[in-house]
Amino acid sequence: MSGATPTQDPGSLRDLDAASEPADGSGGAPRGLSRRGLLALSGGLGLTVGALAGGTAAALSRPSVADGAGLAYPFFGEHQAGITTPAQDRLHFAAFTMRAGATRDDLIELLQDWTYAASRLTQGQDVSPHGAFDGGPYLPPDDTGEAADLGPSGLSITFGFGRTLFVTAEGTDRFGLAAQLPPDFTTLPTMVNDFIQPARSGGDLCIQACANDPQVAVHAIRNLTRIAIGRATLSWSQLGFGRTSSTSTSQQTPRNLFGQKDGTNNLKAEEPERLAEHVWISEGPSWSHGGSYLIARRIAMTIEVWDGLQLTEQDRVLGRAKGSGAPLSGGTEFTAPDFTKAGTDGAPLIDPRSHVARTNPANNGGIAMLRRGYNFVDGNDDQGRLDAGLFFIGFVKAPARFAAVHTNMARDDMFVEYLKTTSSSVFLVPPGVAADGYVGQALFAS
Amino acid sequence: MSGATPTQDPGSLRDLDAASEPADGSGGAPRGLSRRGLLALSGGLGLTVGALAGGTAAALSRPSVADGAGLAYPFFGEHQAGITTPAQDRLHFAAFTMRAGATRDDLIELLQDWTYAASRLTQGQDVSPHGAFDGGPYLPPDDTGEAADLGPSGLSITFGFGRTLFVTAEGTDRFGLAAQLPPDFTTLPTMVNDFIQPARSGGDLCIQACANDPQVAVHAIRNLTRIAIGRATLSWSQLGFGRTSSTSTSQQTPRNLFGQKDGTNNLKAEEPERLAEHVWISEGPSWSHGGSYLIARRIAMTIEVWDGLQLTEQDRVLGRAKGSGAPLSGGTEFTAPDFTKAGTDGAPLIDPRSHVARTNPANNGGIAMLRRGYNFVDGNDDQGRLDAGLFFIGFVKAPARFAAVHTNMARDDMFVEYLKTTSSSVFLVPPGVAADGYVGQALFAS
Repeated sequence: MSGATPTQDPGSLRDLDAASEPADGSGGAPRGLSRRGLLALSGGLGLTVGALAGGTAAALSRPSVADGAGLAYPFFGEHQAGITTPAQDRLHFAAFTMRAGATRDDLIELLQDWTYAASRLTQGQDVSPHGAFDGGPYLPPDDTGEAADLGPSGLSITFGFGRTLFVTAEGTDRFGLAAQLPPDFTTLPTMVNDFIQPARSGGDLCIQACANDPQVAVHAIRNLTRIAIGRATLSWSQLGFGRTSSTSTSQQTPRNLFGQKDGTNNLKAEEPERLAEHVWISEGPSWSHGGSYLIARRIAMTIEVWDGLQLTEQDRVLGRAKGSGAPLSGGTEFTAPDFTKAGTDGAPLIDPRSHVARTNPANNGGIAMLRRGYNFVDGNDDQGRLDAGLFFIGFVKAPARFAAVHTNMARDDMFVEYLKTTSSSVFLVPPGVAADGYVGQALFAS
Repeated sequence: MSGATPTQDPGSLRDLDAASEPADGSGGAPRGLSRRGLLALSGGLGLTVGALAGGTAAALSRPSVADGAGLAYPFFGEHQAGITTPAQDRLHFAAFTMRAGATRDDLIELLQDWTYAASRLTQGQDVSPHGAFDGGPYLPPDDTGEAADLGPSGLSITFGFGRTLFVTAEGTDRFGLAAQLPPDFTTLPTMVNDFIQPARSGGDLCIQACANDPQVAVHAIRNLTRIAIGRATLSWSQLGFGRTSSTSTSQQTPRNLFGQKDGTNNLKAEEPERLAEHVWISEGPSWSHGGSYLIARRIAMTIEVWDGLQLTEQDRVLGRAKGSGAPLSGGTEFTAPDFTKAGTDGAPLIDPRSHVARTNPANNGGIAMLRRGYNFVDGNDDQGRLDAGLFFIGFVKAPARFAAVHTNMARDDMFVEYLKTTSSSVFLVPPGVAADGYVGQALFAS
């Protein structure tokens, strides 16, 4: 917290121009929260603390430390953080609906406000220079304060656009964006074992907040939701823990709630050529290039049923040994599966209907994806079963590529017997933000 | 994982006698899971892996390391762990209902099985020496495996007894325990802003699993639930994060979801005399001495309303400065509040209806409690509000002491306007377990 001593000037709104806003190293824009964003924070009272005190904004590019609370990832860059960023341990994911009657300018302003706040939060700062405790006594604090002592904790904030932002299901172009809808931006077909709940699917906008401390991720979603008041509302959200896929060769492969190493063959940050081939958008309107499609699917896992299976059957369904993660064709975790190798009975050691076989790029026209999902437990049902599973998040350069692999899996994969998908969404994550820009800026300049 | 090579002996159950069970350093009893516990794990098939291989159980008293995944707390001791243990960051709390028709022997057997499993899990071991991956291919694994690579992570497992275990609401003494019901074991009165949901309140038994990794806490509840099959079922559960009270002077005071430092005046592990005065049961039947009453209350917080309050009002409601945690009568966080000190207007600097004033021991006949709650966010409602709050856990030597303080608070405390309690439970946590005993053993010997 700074030692800001705001002047009391009840007649004016907080000043947003460059003279009063301290330099923040971001190149100047977005320079602060919009009047609307500030009104949201102040409960719409229009009260004020006058001009900002100088020197309250710490540098946005605090050096990263090895790990833990002090770990900070840059917000600005070629791609948004939270895709190839080494997967953090905790997730708070939220989807938003634009307010009825919101305009294109409202949307732009919201994205500018979110950019400004996210650029601060990811560096361990409060949502605005007014902070949680020093904005003056007569306003609600800008920042809700519960993460004040926790540091950035590796927070990444990733913004995405739903298809409805471009054109609603009824064909309405609310924001003058229909012409910019990428042809690749399709919805997913209904698949086997889909039990999709509309109230926890889709949305005009999404925010993926990942951090190594859940309170930091929750704080980010809560404060960004608050800033959106009057422009967008939270429609659904999901917490998760224990990443289920590593996204960097520096990470060990984590285990899902079936006890399996998950994501052994995941695309990794250290494979730029494969990322260019499979993850980053390179076709369609140029504003989207360098972005990616985020597929989010809440997959409930019938863990109590799974737990009653013999180990051989668990391994057969996956196609790997549960303990080591090695494919049943032999070797160690990172040995490539050999789908042709047969056992003494002449049958393939890896069942053709196993999860490894059905999802392997070799059996899906070479399609790969970057997975970044999280385990969840949301209490239990009234028969004592945990409401547990995987909040799948995958990044692909076109939704149809995911749909092809997943349809192939859902139809024939033995694993699907133990899964029920209750939420399904596609968001376009626009490319990274320049230091003087805001999320999705090129879309609105198009 | 050990290199166990179990013999295949389909005709017998896993042998539980001392000859085949490896020494585990616990003094010999409980030596392993009961036949019923094993049947639960094997899906009731009665299959077997024969005698246990020698040397598969690692020492139960693995040395503790400084922090992180390797941190292990002893399971056995004078008091159960998870009360004065420095509060870990994550919680999975679960309540259980005994199966209709379950006998006293079923209950004892379950407590023995839980003791055995918990004594292993808290040391970072699998639930049984068969482990998750090496119990043989033709049985479901004893351990579900998702915590296999995570270490003990500071896991504590704390067991409690509901009042219904002694006598049901209808007055039935199912387990021959009614005569052992402590006179102090009362229920809580309904209080202001109580909106208690019976489906997430009470229970015959409870387990509080705390760890520094949520997947470790979830793994413990999941596996203990599985072991209970046929004897008890999970009735409700709650996850939490970001402890809201430190329980040791070695810990910083954490913040709740109102952004406040919470639990500054909490009882601490380093205060044995105050713990003896306020926390450890010392009256009533001798089997309960050294135990404590666990009060669990799920308190939903209207955070969006709170966020719209002026900082002065937030501080007035609490009685402390939000940033520093110092009482409004002056000083720093740990300065004792001065309820008589007046401001320039003659009014007390700490409002008599503030939370600090209403709950301070000085205003409650000297009653104190050890708080050990967790923040929670369970998604959101259909109007975009986070379902967020505090899962309050407090330990007291008699429920009436909590009720006195809380009734005093609920009636007059300004804070209560922003709270709605949706779950309320009392459990008697029996004293700690001797190395050759099981949880609550003295109750059944009485």
